[in-house]
Amino acid sequence: MQLPKGVEWAAHCLVVLERLTEDHPVANSTLAEVYRLSPTYLNKHLQALTRHGLLISMPGSAGGFTLSRPASEITLADVVEALEGGGPIFRCTEIRCDGLFQPHSAEIRASGSCAIAAAMWTAEQAWRHSLAAVSITDLAQGVDALSSKNLNEFFENKNRKVGPTL
Amino acid sequence: MQLPKGVEWAAHCLVVLERLTEDHPVANSTLAEVYRLSPTYLNKHLQALTRHGLLISMPGSAGGFTLSRPASEITLADVVEALEGGGPIFRCTEIRCDGLFQPHSAEIRASGSCAIAAAMWTAEQAWRHSLAAVSITDLAQGVDALSSKNLNEFFENKNRKVGPTL
Ligand code: FES
Ligand code: FES
Repeated sequence: MQLPKGVEWAAHCLVVLERLTEDHPVANSTLAEVYRLSPTYLNKHLQALTRHGLLISMPGSAGGFTLSRPASEITLADVVEALEGGGPIFRCTEIRCDGLFQPHSAEIRASGSCAIAAAMWTAEQAWRHSLAAVSITDLAQGVDALSSKNLNEFFENKNRKVGPTL
Repeated sequence: MQLPKGVEWAAHCLVVLERLTEDHPVANSTLAEVYRLSPTYLNKHLQALTRHGLLISMPGSAGGFTLSRPASEITLADVVEALEGGGPIFRCTEIRCDGLFQPHSAEIRASGSCAIAAAMWTAEQAWRHSLAAVSITDLAQGVDALSSKNLNEFFENKNRKVGPTL
């Protein structure tokens, strides 16, 4: 069981957008260039972030993506939910009501959730809570000084060449 | 991202084995009958539990599966690990060292783990710790009285018919 690769890409791109001092939208192709990612796949992930309200997508030649809200209000839980859906990791098919137990499945259901399903969902909540405690702002603070410098130089250069459209 | 269906099957079968008062090995076909599961698929899962040291598999016509150790020492984390592998949910491909950052990737790596990867792994640990806190004994205590009765009657009947081989 693995998260889609897009989670790493999306989280890193959100951190890049957080670190930009200028407030211009950044094109998909520019973000792809930063990490040398496939622009096609990256665009799919950025569209998912947009659909889930984490990014705003501006159309047109000066368009691109910006964060939809303060980076401190976007968490890793939001990123995971946008890219893999918010559904449970563990799906219970209610086998406790099958086979031998089928004749009294109504009573079993009435007695509450299956203890196995409940424990699995409690563990998932622990995972999601931990992800929800980490914002893009927190993560941006972890970027090393040399990488920050590279990033700034790259964007200054882009700005100089193409104006505010990045 | 979802856990394989086998996790539900395997956890329930371990609980059934815990609840048996008699200490005979239980055949795959008998466990499949309890929940009306596919014997072929169930056997695959029980073999995985055996390979991971949660079950002992006894060969021969009187053979079958028994718990390898006290049920209080088998947890949901063990079941998940046996069925889906213990590898991380989040795989980091070190994109922080790609693209713009490639020229100083050695320095980046030397500065420690990526903050994004570290946060993802902390969340996974919270998930695995929560699963590790729940034993098969805990889960067996959650089985309702009517289901326990059905189960006992079923096994008594099997014993009566075929002797101690279940
Ligand atoms: S019935 Fe689904 S986990 Fe128990
Ligand atoms: S480099 Fe892999 S998560 Fe940051």
